[in-house]
Amino acid sequence: MRIGILGTGIVGRTLATGFAARGHNVALGTRGVDALMARVDPDSMGNPPFHDWHADHPDVGIATFTDAAAHGEMLVNATVGGGSIDALRLASPPNIDGKVLIDTSNPLDFSQGFPPFLFVANQDSLAEQIQRAFPAVRVVKALNTMSAAVMVDPGAVAGGDHTLFLCGNDAAARSEVTTLLTDAFGWRDVLDMGDLTNARALEAYLLLWTRMMPVVGTHLFNVKVVR
Amino acid sequence: MRIGILGTGIVGRTLATGFAARGHNVALGTRGVDALMARVDPDSMGNPPFHDWHADHPDVGIATFTDAAAHGEMLVNATVGGGSIDALRLASPPNIDGKVLIDTSNPLDFSQGFPPFLFVANQDSLAEQIQRAFPAVRVVKALNTMSAAVMVDPGAVAGGDHTLFLCGNDAAARSEVTTLLTDAFGWRDVLDMGDLTNARALEAYLLLWTRMMPVVGTHLFNVKVVR
Repeated sequence: MRIGILGTGIVGRTLATGFAARGHNVALGTRGVDALMARVDPDSMGNPPFHDWHADHPDVGIATFTDAAAHGEMLVNATVGGGSIDALRLASPPNIDGKVLIDTSNPLDFSQGFPPFLFVANQDSLAEQIQRAFPAVRVVKALNTMSAAVMVDPGAVAGGDHTLFLCGNDAAARSEVTTLLTDAFGWRDVLDMGDLTNARALEAYLLLWTRMMPVVGTHLFNVKVVR
Repeated sequence: MRIGILGTGIVGRTLATGFAARGHNVALGTRGVDALMARVDPDSMGNPPFHDWHADHPDVGIATFTDAAAHGEMLVNATVGGGSIDALRLASPPNIDGKVLIDTSNPLDFSQGFPPFLFVANQDSLAEQIQRAFPAVRVVKALNTMSAAVMVDPGAVAGGDHTLFLCGNDAAARSEVTTLLTDAFGWRDVLDMGDLTNARALEAYLLLWTRMMPVVGTHLFNVKVVR
């Protein structure tokens, strides 16, 4: 499948590598390709400069937001939460309308340090803001509740026996995402939470995730819903 | 141990029965004992009238908030979130100061229906509000992330292999609560999250819990942190 991923941070890179390794045709989208390729310093999260990473992953295309969106039959929002709506605006509605968008972003505000708080919470969510801004996009909130490494390799944690939450207003889109992530990465406990208002819960869970990470001492963790 | 439980709803009743069955000396506190005993209708959650329940559980004492608090060497807040600070004010500081208070409450607002939203969230929590209002109380947020039945019988879900989160500013108090809940109910995966600001996360998790319950189709569920 042709997949367009918006955002070239660790989430975008990891998903791009993961999908490409399973035979998908991936384009990573960024605001400005030349500016991205010219960077020589690690990013704010300590990731190596993009052109170093890309030299090791020539199977992943690099493009503008617009071209990556046009490339994708399915899209992934892997931008930081505060930049997601701008990135999708640059991708431009003709390139995204009607397509499934896996929204992995979180509305995290680190302006007061770590752990972050949420810049939208409780009675609204970033996913709903995106859906309202781009009503013809089939938004599916998914993969926002674990680290990038776990997204593409659930088997790295407890043999893969843990839960992926997703939600969205389009049931067929939720089903398509479930199939893609099951087939590509081996997710086997996918909990379909229903419509996109449930993104309020999946995003608020980050308040817990960010606090658990230092307690458990690794980003290779998740929760398993047991009953 | 003498335990004073504030609140006579399903959480208070279930914890009272659970602690009493393990040999603890429990008093349940309410605003007005006579008014509570006089009720003949089920409460707003459909629980049977208190006096019917109490007839089956004569080993549990019933008292005013003040007397239940005075009775307890350890205290439990099992009131609804919106009434917790009032209940503790009625219990009165001389009866609660210096004592460990297990805060099981959640700041749930059902005024717009189900699922509820939170009346305090993100950069504050009900537990912190309680701690600020009663600075000499040793508040430990715990047991707020599962149904009452699971609180006292973790073994009823997945053989007990799931997680109890707790937090509080007093490390010794967190340890006392861990010991009590481990010994009384068999909790064995207790995740000590640290100081009380982490209650923001444990309370926000209710946004997910309340949405998961109808999806999983039972209140007998929980999450297990896996790594």
